[in-house]
Amino acid sequence: MTVKTDIGTTTPDRITVRGKNISTEILGQFDFVDMIWWTTFARMPEQREKNMANLVLVMATDHGLTPSAISARLTYLGAPEALQGAVAAGLLGAGSVFLGSAQNVTEMLVRGAAPLTDEASDAQVRECARALVQEFRDARRPLSGVGHPIHIDGDPRIPTLAAVSRDNGYYGRHWRLMEAIAVVLREDFGRPLPLNAAGGVGAIFAEMGLDPLLARGLGLIGRSAGLVAHILEERESPTGQQIWDLVLAQDPRNALPVRQGARRA
Amino acid sequence: MTVKTDIGTTTPDRITVRGKNISTEILGQFDFVDMIWWTTFARMPEQREKNMANLVLVMATDHGLTPSAISARLTYLGAPEALQGAVAAGLLGAGSVFLGSAQNVTEMLVRGAAPLTDEASDAQVRECARALVQEFRDARRPLSGVGHPIHIDGDPRIPTLAAVSRDNGYYGRHWRLMEAIAVVLREDFGRPLPLNAAGGVGAIFAEMGLDPLLARGLGLIGRSAGLVAHILEERESPTGQQIWDLVLAQDPRNALPVRQGARRA
Amino acid sequence: MTVKTDIGTTTPDRITVRGKNISTEILGQFDFVDMIWWTTFARMPEQREKNMANLVLVMATDHGLTPSAISARLTYLGAPEALQGAVAAGLLGAGSVFLGSAQNVTEMLVRGAAPLTDEASDAQVRECARALVQEFRDARRPLSGVGHPIHIDGDPRIPTLAAVSRDNGYYGRHWRLMEAIAVVLREDFGRPLPLNAAGGVGAIFAEMGLDPLLARGLGLIGRSAGLVAHILEERESPTGQQIWDLVLAQDPRNALPVRQGARRA
Amino acid sequence: MTVKTDIGTTTPDRITVRGKNISTEILGQFDFVDMIWWTTFARMPEQREKNMANLVLVMATDHGLTPSAISARLTYLGAPEALQGAVAAGLLGAGSVFLGSAQNVTEMLVRGAAPLTDEASDAQVRECARALVQEFRDARRPLSGVGHPIHIDGDPRIPTLAAVSRDNGYYGRHWRLMEAIAVVLREDFGRPLPLNAAGGVGAIFAEMGLDPLLARGLGLIGRSAGLVAHILEERESPTGQQIWDLVLAQDPRNALPVRQGARRA
Repeated sequence: MTVKTDIGTTTPDRITVRGKNISTEILGQFDFVDMIWWTTFARMPEQREKNMANLVLVMATDHGLTPSAISARLTYLGAPEALQGAVAAGLLGAGSVFLGSAQNVTEMLVRGAAPLTDEASDAQVRECARALVQEFRDARRPLSGVGHPIHIDGDPRIPTLAAVSRDNGYYGRHWRLMEAIAVVLREDFGRPLPLNAAGGVGAIFAEMGLDPLLARGLGLIGRSAGLVAHILEERESPTGQQIWDLVLAQDPRNALPVRQGARRA
Repeated sequence: MTVKTDIGTTTPDRITVRGKNISTEILGQFDFVDMIWWTTFARMPEQREKNMANLVLVMATDHGLTPSAISARLTYLGAPEALQGAVAAGLLGAGSVFLGSAQNVTEMLVRGAAPLTDEASDAQVRECARALVQEFRDARRPLSGVGHPIHIDGDPRIPTLAAVSRDNGYYGRHWRLMEAIAVVLREDFGRPLPLNAAGGVGAIFAEMGLDPLLARGLGLIGRSAGLVAHILEERESPTGQQIWDLVLAQDPRNALPVRQGARRA
Repeated sequence: MTVKTDIGTTTPDRITVRGKNISTEILGQFDFVDMIWWTTFARMPEQREKNMANLVLVMATDHGLTPSAISARLTYLGAPEALQGAVAAGLLGAGSVFLGSAQNVTEMLVRGAAPLTDEASDAQVRECARALVQEFRDARRPLSGVGHPIHIDGDPRIPTLAAVSRDNGYYGRHWRLMEAIAVVLREDFGRPLPLNAAGGVGAIFAEMGLDPLLARGLGLIGRSAGLVAHILEERESPTGQQIWDLVLAQDPRNALPVRQGARRA
Repeated sequence: MTVKTDIGTTTPDRITVRGKNISTEILGQFDFVDMIWWTTFARMPEQREKNMANLVLVMATDHGLTPSAISARLTYLGAPEALQGAVAAGLLGAGSVFLGSAQNVTEMLVRGAAPLTDEASDAQVRECARALVQEFRDARRPLSGVGHPIHIDGDPRIPTLAAVSRDNGYYGRHWRLMEAIAVVLREDFGRPLPLNAAGGVGAIFAEMGLDPLLARGLGLIGRSAGLVAHILEERESPTGQQIWDLVLAQDPRNALPVRQGARRA
C-alpha cells in the first residue's frame, strides 16, 4: 500500500516541492507560472511556454457577468463569510460546455491531427477537418471549440490568440485543423460556427503538447482570479439581490414588494 | 492515533450503521427520516420528531427561482454532465444569510431563552427579547431570523410552522421569544421586520433541543431535493442562457447579438 | 425571452409549489418524499413509489468512512464555519464511478432491456446481457453497476434491494438483465464482478420508469444526510487531523513532530 | 434596478476589461499578475507588488498531501470526468482555520497596528501585541496566524517571507506586530506558538494596504494551481483508493478483502 506524492514532502523544519527546498530555492525566486510548471512537470517553463501560459491564464480570468460570475455572486449573497464557497460555485460550471471544453478540444485536435504534419497542404488539413466533422455528426456528438452564444460572427479574441501562438512558434497543424473545422462547417455543412475561446485554447494546448486535462486546469486557475475580483466588487456594489429580483420579475406569477430602504435588522 | 466513526463500519459481507446490519435491520424497514435520526443520534425518532423533521425538510426544499436555484441552473449550463456540481453550487449559498441562518437563530434562542421557562409571562419574554435585540445592536451584529427581501409584511409560512409546532408540543419559550423579538423590533425600535423562515426553523430546533448545526444540516438536505427538481426542469426547459442574457441586458455597455435558432454544432 | 419555472412562484404573501399554496396545502401535510415527488413530478407518489424512494434514500445515506465522508471531514477541518462547504465537498465525488453511477446503470438498463418483456425467458435475458457486455467491451467503456473495491464477493445490500423491489412490484426485466450481466461476466468472460449498490439502484429506477438523472439526484439527497451526520460527529470526535497525519506517515520522506497537547492559540 | 459590473463588458465583436479591449490591449501583453491587478483594481501593479503577489501565489500552491489535496484526490476518485469538482472540493477547506485564515490575520493586524507607526519602538510594538493577545483571550476567540500542527517549532517559510518583504519595502509595523505576537505568546503566556504561513501572508497584505478578502482570494488562486497538479499526478499514480483503505484500516471493526488485481469491469 503506497500513498505518496512526488509533488511535495514536509517535515517540521523543511518543505520541499519536487525536490527543491521551498524556503531557500523557490520562494522569492519563482513566479507563479514557474511554480505551476515546477509543481506539475518538475521542470521550469521555457520563456515561450510562459508566454503562452500567461496568455491562457489571462483569457480565462473572467470578464463580464458570465454564468460563473453570476453564480459566485448569488452564492456570496447567502454566505458572505465563505469566499471559498462563492469561488467554488463559480468554478463548478467549468464543464464540457464552457471553459472546461478546452480539454475536449485539445483531445480532439491531438487525435484528429495525428495523420498530419505541420507542413501538410491546406487541402490535406481541410480533408482531415471534414473527416472529423463527419465523425462527430455521425456519432451525434457535439463539436467543441466552435460557436458562442454572443460572439456569433467570430470571437474577437481568436485573431490575437493565433498571432501570439505564431510569435511563439506554436502555430502548426493543430491550429490549422481547428481553423479548417470552422471553414468546413460553414462551407460544406452550411453551419456558420466560428471558433470560440475554447477552440483557440485547445489549439494552443495541442500545439504545446501539453496534457489536455491541464487545459481545463489552467482555465480553472485563471477563472478563480476573475471570480475573486467579482466578489470584491460584489461586496462594495451588490448585484445579487437585483439579479434575483430581475429573474423573478420575468414571470408574472411572481410579484415583488415595494421596498423602502434596507430591510434587514 | 484513532480514526474511526461510530456511524458505520464495513466488511466485505456486512455493512453496519450504528450497530445495525443495514441489509437485515434497516433497508426496507426505515424511512428516510428514521435513517437521518438513526445515523445522527443512534436512536429512532419519536413520531412528533418525525413530523417536525418532515416539516423542516419540506420547507427547505426549494420553491421558485431562489439564488440557490439560479446558481444551480447556471452551473448546469456549463457542466450538464455533472449534476453533483450543480447541486453543490446551489448548496454553497446556504450560509449565514440564507438557509444556513437557521443555525444562528437556534443558537441565539437557546442562549437567549435560558433565563425563561415555558410558563414565563409575556412581559418576561418580552423583556428577554428586548435585552437580546439590544445586545445585538450594541455589538453591531445582524439579527438572524427576521426580515426577508420579498415577504416584507410577514412570511406566509410562519403561522403554519407555529401551528404545527403547537400541535406537536413544540411551542414554548423559544418560539415565544422569537415572536417577541419581532414585536420588540417593531414597537420599541421602529423596525418592522417580521419573522422569516429561518426564524421559524430556528425556533423549532431550539424547542426540540436539537443541535443548532443540524438546523443548517436539515436545510441542506431539503434544499438538495429542490435543486434536483430544478435541474430536471432545466434540462427540459432551459433558462440558463436566458438568465445570462437578461443580466447582461441590464447594462447598456453590453450588447447581445440577434440570434436565429440554435448556434451550436 | 422567458425565464420561469413551474416548480414555484412567490409573492409577498403567498408561496406556491406546483400550484399548491405551501402554507395551507403542503406544510404539515406532506412528508419529505411527498414533497420530492410533488416538486419534481407535480403529482403525489403512490405508496409503492414512496417505499422505493425511502429505500434508495436510506441506502445513499452514508455509512462508514467513504471517500465522500473523508472529504467532508477534511473540508470541515479547514472551514468549520461553513457546513455547506463540507457537505458540498462530499457530494462532489458523486460522479461516474461512485453514487452518480446509478444514473449510468439506469440508462444502460433502459436501453438494453428495450427488446425484452418482463415475461422473457431466462435465456433471452441472458442473451441480451451478453450482447450488452460485448458492446461495452468492444467500445472499451467501463460497465457500471458491477464490482466494488470492498464487497468483492457480492454486495450484502443487493438481496434486500431485490426483495423489496419484488414486494413492491418492481422486479422485472431490468432487474433480471442487471443480474444476468453479472452472471455473464462471471461465466462467459471469467470476470467475477457481482452487482454493486449502483447496479441495484439503477435496476430499481429502470423498473420504476423514472428519469435516470433522478437516480443520481436521490443519491445526492440521501448522501447529504449522511454527510451532515459525519460532520456532527467530526465536531465532537475529530478525525481530520489524524487522517492528514496518517496519509503523510505513509511516505518516509515526510516526518511529523512529536506533539504534546493542543498547539493552537 | 441596476445590475452591472465595472469589471467587463461584452458585445458580439468586442470584450473589454476595465475599459481596455482584451484583444488589442491585454492578451499577449499582460501577464497573469498584471491581469489580477487590472481586473481587481483597474490599475497595473508596481513591480514590488508583482513580486509580493508572486510570492503569495507560489506559497499558496499546494505542496504535499494537505487536507485540500486529499479531498481533491478522493473527489476525483468518484468523478474523474469533472476536474472542476475535484478542484472545488479542495478549495472548500480554505476557511477560517487553513489558508483562508490569512484574511483574519490581515484584519487583525490592520486593526491592531492602527496606534503604531513603522518607527514605533520595539517596546511599543510589544505592548500593542500584548493588548491584542489579551483581547483575543478575553473574548475566547482563537488567534489566527500562529501555531501549526506540523511546523511546531517555527514555519520554515517565515524567514523567507520576511526577507522578501523587507527587500520590497513591505516590512513595517504590521510584520513587527505579528512577530511580536508570537514573542508575547511564548514569553508572557507560556505558549510557544510560532508564526505560521497565514501569519506571514496576513502581515504582507496588511503592509501592502490590500483588502483582507484578497488575502483569502490569492490563496484560493494559488491553491487551485496546486490542486490541478495533484489531480494530474493522481490520474497517473492513483492514491485515492489507498487512502480510503488506509482510513478504514484504522478501525478493527472494518475489514478489507484480499484483492487480487483490478476488480472493475
